Amino acid sequence: MPTSDNAPFAFDGLDRTIHEKARLSILTSLISKPDGLSFNQLKELCALTDGNLSRHVQVLQDAGLVSITKTFVDNRPHTTCALTGAGRERFMDYLNVLETVLKNANTSPEHSPALKPKPA
Amino acid sequence: MPTSDNAPFAFDGLDRTIHEKARLSILTSLISKPDGLSFNQLKELCALTDGNLSRHVQVLQDAGLVSITKTFVDNRPHTTCALTGAGRERFMDYLNVLETVLKNANTSPEHSPALKPKPA
Repeated sequence: MPTSDNAPFAFDGLDRTIHEKARLSILTSLISKPDGLSFNQLKELCALTDGNLSRHVQVLQDAGLVSITKTFVDNRPHTTCALTGAGRERFMDYLNVLETVLKNANTSPEHSPALKPKPA
Repeated sequence: MPTSDNAPFAFDGLDRTIHEKARLSILTSLISKPDGLSFNQLKELCALTDGNLSRHVQVLQDAGLVSITKTFVDNRPHTTCALTGAGRERFMDYLNVLETVLKNANTSPEHSPALKPKPA
């Protein structure tokens, strides 16, 4: 396996479990919510269907990145999803690699400052 | 399709053609090289095998993001890959969404500044 020094653009740290678009949405939604979010909140924030959300949350749970809690609220089942400690740590590592991607893409003087302001 | 306002973490702009890890490596390598890079250079920079590089470059070419030029150097075939104008534009749009991901992940006071300095 080449090291990062040999292959500066290999981005080995871009953990595929996290990098997948829907899972990146879920993790970003959860990062600022230590108490987690309900499935319904996640569905709305991430614009995911029930099936897609369940599938991706399962992948994240299997990888130890999130925990699922099932309780009852007003006699109705209520599912909450939260980042685990390990999940938080791995997500922060991933975000550091994303920063590197942006910095690398932004290195050329021709493209610095590269990023256009987002239209309001 | 929900708008970004309704689903702030859906990250609709995370174009899957670009977001795939190997293709993100290739595009980041090319962004500062208006004259393109040879296949061998790309292979090394991105730590990709011949097969993987060819497959992902093909996807990028089919999407109109890169162009391939085949020439002869010292009587040996030489393949060069470069970003197209449209490719550059779409990649810059993608990078703006990445910035949004980082900003969103960094919003909580608990995680601000969220990103640990990379170990030297």
